[in-house]
Amino acid sequence: MEGTMELLNKTLNSITRIDDEVAKKAKQELDALAKPLGSLGKLEDIAIKIAAIQGNTKFNTDRKNIIVMAADNGVTNQGVSAAPQSVTALMTRVIRNGVSGVGVLAKHAGADLTVVDIGVNAEINIPGVINKKIAMGTADMSKGPAMTREQAIQGIETGIEIVNKLCDEGYNLLGTGEMGIGNTSTSSAVFSVLSGISIDKAAGMGVGLTIEQYKNKVAVLKRAIEVNNPDKNDPIDVIAKVGGFDIAGLVGCYLGAAYRKVPIVIDGFISSAAALAAYRLKPEVKDYMIQSHLSAEPGAKYVMQELGLSPMLDMNMRLGEGTGCALAFHIVSAAEAIVKNMATFNDIMLDDSFLVDIR
Amino acid sequence: MEGTMELLNKTLNSITRIDDEVAKKAKQELDALAKPLGSLGKLEDIAIKIAAIQGNTKFNTDRKNIIVMAADNGVTNQGVSAAPQSVTALMTRVIRNGVSGVGVLAKHAGADLTVVDIGVNAEINIPGVINKKIAMGTADMSKGPAMTREQAIQGIETGIEIVNKLCDEGYNLLGTGEMGIGNTSTSSAVFSVLSGISIDKAAGMGVGLTIEQYKNKVAVLKRAIEVNNPDKNDPIDVIAKVGGFDIAGLVGCYLGAAYRKVPIVIDGFISSAAALAAYRLKPEVKDYMIQSHLSAEPGAKYVMQELGLSPMLDMNMRLGEGTGCALAFHIVSAAEAIVKNMATFNDIMLDDSFLVDIR
Repeated sequence: MEGTMELLNKTLNSITRIDDEVAKKAKQELDALAKPLGSLGKLEDIAIKIAAIQGNTKFNTDRKNIIVMAADNGVTNQGVSAAPQSVTALMTRVIRNGVSGVGVLAKHAGADLTVVDIGVNAEINIPGVINKKIAMGTADMSKGPAMTREQAIQGIETGIEIVNKLCDEGYNLLGTGEMGIGNTSTSSAVFSVLSGISIDKAAGMGVGLTIEQYKNKVAVLKRAIEVNNPDKNDPIDVIAKVGGFDIAGLVGCYLGAAYRKVPIVIDGFISSAAALAAYRLKPEVKDYMIQSHLSAEPGAKYVMQELGLSPMLDMNMRLGEGTGCALAFHIVSAAEAIVKNMATFNDIMLDDSFLVDIR
Repeated sequence: MEGTMELLNKTLNSITRIDDEVAKKAKQELDALAKPLGSLGKLEDIAIKIAAIQGNTKFNTDRKNIIVMAADNGVTNQGVSAAPQSVTALMTRVIRNGVSGVGVLAKHAGADLTVVDIGVNAEINIPGVINKKIAMGTADMSKGPAMTREQAIQGIETGIEIVNKLCDEGYNLLGTGEMGIGNTSTSSAVFSVLSGISIDKAAGMGVGLTIEQYKNKVAVLKRAIEVNNPDKNDPIDVIAKVGGFDIAGLVGCYLGAAYRKVPIVIDGFISSAAALAAYRLKPEVKDYMIQSHLSAEPGAKYVMQELGLSPMLDMNMRLGEGTGCALAFHIVSAAEAIVKNMATFNDIMLDDSFLVDIR
C-alpha cells in the first residue's frame, strides 16, 4: 500500500492555489472590453478562472479531451439498475467508436476522447480503449467493501496517470465522463456519506427505474452504508467501501488536473460525487473545476454549493458519459474568444472610423 | 396605413402550425438512439422542435444569422440609462465591425451578423449596416407616443423583410439581437402593459444604473404608460406608444421566421418582450421560438412561462446584442449532430465488433 501511495501523495503535496494576481489582471482586462462591467456574466467568471489556473490572461483551451472512466459495479447484482451489467462493456465499445452521445458531442466540440477500462467486467482489449483494469468490476457493496483500500488508491492514481499523459500531450482543457451500469448508486452512496445527507434524499431515480426499483435501490444503498460503515472523514475509505473504480479514477483526474494546472469540467452526478471526494482530499482542487450543467440527480446541486460552483447549462440531461462537458466546452471556448478578440473601449476610441457622426 | 399593412397581414395570415407528425417521427428517431429514453433532455426537445419547424427529422441549422436591430429611444432624455444616447450609433458601428460581444461570439459559433439601422439617431451610411431607418430615434414616450402606428407597422414589416431576405439567401437558423440605449426601459414598458405586471416588478436594474437612477426609471415608465394609455389587447398600439423601433423590428423577425418556417432564437429581455408581442399578434409563432438563456431582467422569466419556453443556458448575461443567441447556436448545432451522427441500438446490434465478449 505504501508503495502505491507514492504518486497520490506526491500529487496531493504538489497541488497549489490558482494565481490570484492573474485573476485580478484578467478581470481588469475584461473590464476594459467594450461592454458594461460584468455584463457577460459567467463567460467572464470562466475566463478569470482559467486565466488564474493557467497563469495567463490570454489562456488556451484549444486542445480538449474528455476522459471516460468505464467500470462495472458488483452492486448491480441487487437490481439497482434498469440495464444489465453487460451494457457497460457494450457501451464502452460504442463510446470508443465515437458514435455514442459523448462521441458525437465531443467531435462536434472539437474534443478528443480518452476511454479508460478501469474495471469493466469483460475483456476489452481493443485499440482506443486504455487498459487500466483494476478488476473485473467491484464486489457487491451491499455485502462488504466494493474494493480494497489499495484498489481505491490504484484507481485514483490511474486517473492521475491518465491526466499526466494527456497534459504531456498538450491538452489544456479536460472533461470528466464515465460509463458504468450502477454508478448512480455508488455515486449516491459516496455522496450521502461525504455530505451527511440521507440516502432517501441523495439517491435519484437514476435512468429508467420504476418506483419499486427505486425503493429497492434506496434499501440496498442504506444496507451498503450500514454494512461497511465508511469513515466520512476519509474519502479513500468511502470510495473503497461504497464507491466504484470509475469514481476513484475520476477523483484522480481532478487531482491530476489541479496538479498540472489544467481546467477540468465536471459532467453530471457521478462526476460531481467524484469532485466532492477530490475536494475533501484537497480543497484547493475546486479552483480547477468548472461545472458544466445542472444534473437532474438531487445530490448534484449540493455538491455545487459546497464547492462554490455554478452550472452554465440547464439541459435536463441525464445521460452521463461526459456529454455535459462536451456542450460546456463550446462555452469555455467562447470565453476564450471574448478575451482574445473583443475590442476594448480604448481600441474604439482610437479608431476614427467609429467616431464619425457621433455627437 | 392600409398600404403598409399589406406585408404584415399577408404574413400573419400565412403563418401555420408546425408539423406534429414530423415531431412525432423525430421523437421516435431519438428514442431509437443508443441512450436511455429522453436522457439528452433539452437537446432532444430542441431537435424535435426544429424537425417540426423545418418539416424534416434530419433538419439543417448550418446557415446561422443573428439579426441586430439598432435604434434610439427618445425616452433617454429622461435619464433612464447609464450610457448616453450616442453610444447606440457608436456600438452599431462596432458591432458591424465584428469586434463587439456579439460579433466575437457569432464568429465563434459560425454565424453571420445582419446589422440593421432601424432608427439610430445618427447617419450610419456604411457598408455592412442595412439602412432601414424609420426616424432619427423615437419620440420621448414619457410625453406622448414613441412613434405613430404607421411607424410601428413599418418597423414590424422591416423585420419581416429582413427575415425574408435572409431566408432567400439560405439561412436556416436565426437569432435576435439589438442595440439601443434605453431599450430595457421600452421593453419593460411593453412587457408591463402586455402582461399586466406592474412596472415596479417588470423593470430591472438595466445596465449600470444606481438605485436613484433606477427609481427615476420606474417613475418615467409609469408616466409613459399613464400618458399614452396603450391598449393591452392591441400589441401594435403598445409598441407604437411605449416601444421602440428595435422592438418593432424584432416582432417582425419572429413573424417572418414563423412564416418562412425557420427556427428563431430569443436572446435577452428586449428580445423576450418582442417575442411576447409577436405571440400576442399570432400565438402560433411561439412554436418557432427557442429560448437561449435566462436573462437577469425580471420580466424574462414571465415571458418564457407564458410562451412555454425554457432556456438552455444560465449565464447571468445582460449584454444583449444577441450574445445569448450566439452561445445557444452551439447547443442547437449539437442537437443536429446528435440526430445525424449518433448510433441507434439497432446499429449496435447489427455491428459484430461491439458484441464480442458481451455475456
